[in-house]
Amino acid sequence: MTEEVCGLRTPYLLFIGDCTEPGYAKTAFGLRDWAGDKCVGEYALPGATVSTGLPRMDPAEAAARGAKSMVIGIANSGGRIAPQWLPALEMALAAGLDLVSGMHAKLGDLPGLREAAEISPGRLIDVRQPPAELPVATGRKRSGKRLLTVGTDCALGKKYTALSIAKSFAARGVASDFRATGQTGILIAGAGIALDSVVADFAAGAAEVLSPDNFDDHWDVIEGQGSLYHPAYSGVAMALLHGSQPDVFVVCHDPLRTHVLGHSEFPLPDIEQVVELTIQLGRRTNPAIRCVGVSLNTSALRLDEANDLLAREAVRLRMPVADPIRRGDLFDSLVENCLAP
Amino acid sequence: MTEEVCGLRTPYLLFIGDCTEPGYAKTAFGLRDWAGDKCVGEYALPGATVSTGLPRMDPAEAAARGAKSMVIGIANSGGRIAPQWLPALEMALAAGLDLVSGMHAKLGDLPGLREAAEISPGRLIDVRQPPAELPVATGRKRSGKRLLTVGTDCALGKKYTALSIAKSFAARGVASDFRATGQTGILIAGAGIALDSVVADFAAGAAEVLSPDNFDDHWDVIEGQGSLYHPAYSGVAMALLHGSQPDVFVVCHDPLRTHVLGHSEFPLPDIEQVVELTIQLGRRTNPAIRCVGVSLNTSALRLDEANDLLAREAVRLRMPVADPIRRGDLFDSLVENCLAP
Repeated sequence: MTEEVCGLRTPYLLFIGDCTEPGYAKTAFGLRDWAGDKCVGEYALPGATVSTGLPRMDPAEAAARGAKSMVIGIANSGGRIAPQWLPALEMALAAGLDLVSGMHAKLGDLPGLREAAEISPGRLIDVRQPPAELPVATGRKRSGKRLLTVGTDCALGKKYTALSIAKSFAARGVASDFRATGQTGILIAGAGIALDSVVADFAAGAAEVLSPDNFDDHWDVIEGQGSLYHPAYSGVAMALLHGSQPDVFVVCHDPLRTHVLGHSEFPLPDIEQVVELTIQLGRRTNPAIRCVGVSLNTSALRLDEANDLLAREAVRLRMPVADPIRRGDLFDSLVENCLAP
Repeated sequence: MTEEVCGLRTPYLLFIGDCTEPGYAKTAFGLRDWAGDKCVGEYALPGATVSTGLPRMDPAEAAARGAKSMVIGIANSGGRIAPQWLPALEMALAAGLDLVSGMHAKLGDLPGLREAAEISPGRLIDVRQPPAELPVATGRKRSGKRLLTVGTDCALGKKYTALSIAKSFAARGVASDFRATGQTGILIAGAGIALDSVVADFAAGAAEVLSPDNFDDHWDVIEGQGSLYHPAYSGVAMALLHGSQPDVFVVCHDPLRTHVLGHSEFPLPDIEQVVELTIQLGRRTNPAIRCVGVSLNTSALRLDEANDLLAREAVRLRMPVADPIRRGDLFDSLVENCLAP
């Protein structure tokens, strides 16, 4: 179903343009790290100094090796597509590859690209574009199990945590799907819905479509968006919570963040506040909702500081507290808590 | 500012087509009742048996009397524009009137209408279409006072209550604006944003744009949408609450409704639950938020039953409980409670 929702054809060729700043190639690195089995190689222009380490090849060669899409792996500030990339993008279309972008600018709005797509077998795909005919949510209880990552704020590890849990589920032989709600997640999963781009009346409906009925022991691991305490994105978080009807949720938090990113007059809520409010509101569509743990992004702390903090918070909050990157043993107990009956 | 947001030119000519069913002419009646000073007359086709009682005239005559727009005052089931109306709609454009619709179907998608608009001075205006460049919400505290109508569900009097309060404010000489968030409200106000049609990420931002900074003693009376307990529309209600940052709110309720309209497995929340949750969540963008009363739609009750209920609920909830239609004295005390310091 979600293949239809987004319709990405894999495997990918990763386009890194003439990039010289690794920070801008986050999308390409994310795909290499989380969807390496879906990547046949990278295509760089002369002048590029950044590399994913994947084999270099041009679109025709990638197509010959089975690639179905070329993904723009660069997200520079402003989300623009550089004019000097256009010949390379047209070459991909001519080679029969779909051209896939998670940027704000629509591919079809670029001069010449729409025309190039019309005369070539490849399609233009903007993954931020939600499907056209989303339904209004019904609230009907669906079969299967669902996990949602929520947060004390935006941009502190909700996607990373969901991907880590889905990977851990897979390693344990638990049937599961990572359900992407943002552009990078969609590229990694090869499917999903950019929830922030859905018209407000259909946002909960989109979340319902994203995690349809499934086998009773199947888990959808749903990437969270926004935060119930965010002055701009609380509506998205609310719609995603009600539409996802999660059985369990994990709270993601950055221990060094004190205020909402970009909104310095809004203090971050406590983890406990987020746990309580998520249960209070989530009960509306799943009375059995429970919190199974906290995912802390401790990347800015020394290992001994991180260990101290993880231990202290686990005692204080009386639940598993882990960093998906560090101390796999703690993360294991968080994952086991999801699966506890 | 909101004139720009929506850009409706008044006064209106109300188009009632060939309507024979008063229930379908709700939009025309609503405009007559709530924006009578903005209506110069009605235009009916042969066969129409419904009338607003306003003077009948054709578009050219209406234009001569100062009309700037012809509003489609009919909302039949399905929200369609009947083919036999097209010549009349084209006539309005030719007379220099804007053609205004709150229906789902876009005017420009109708055969011939886009072409007719191109060669005439009148414009096609779909009021459900939100403005193109809405910002992400900032959460910044704005000057002026704000009232939001919230509800235990959809479709139980949030617009009607807000309009009644705005009228009562005006009668008391309180500077105020009714801020419309749905298509009928927008037609009545001549401005507004159809919040249900805004992309989720910008919904709170749209609410901020809708009620901008104002004089300290000025009130924006904001039409609520959805409900925090609605499985499909809770996200819209949340975004509107955070973006509106209301100082006071009124809970609207239908005493005979037991379940969410169209969602029979969801019991309606108690009024108290809505009061508590609205305060709990609303505090995020306005720590001083308070509930000033309850608006009950008692239209299905006999007057004595209604009187009993209003009195009983006022004692139970310890706040003004009124029906804007019945017992003006009770409604007066609700309005006075809004203005209490």
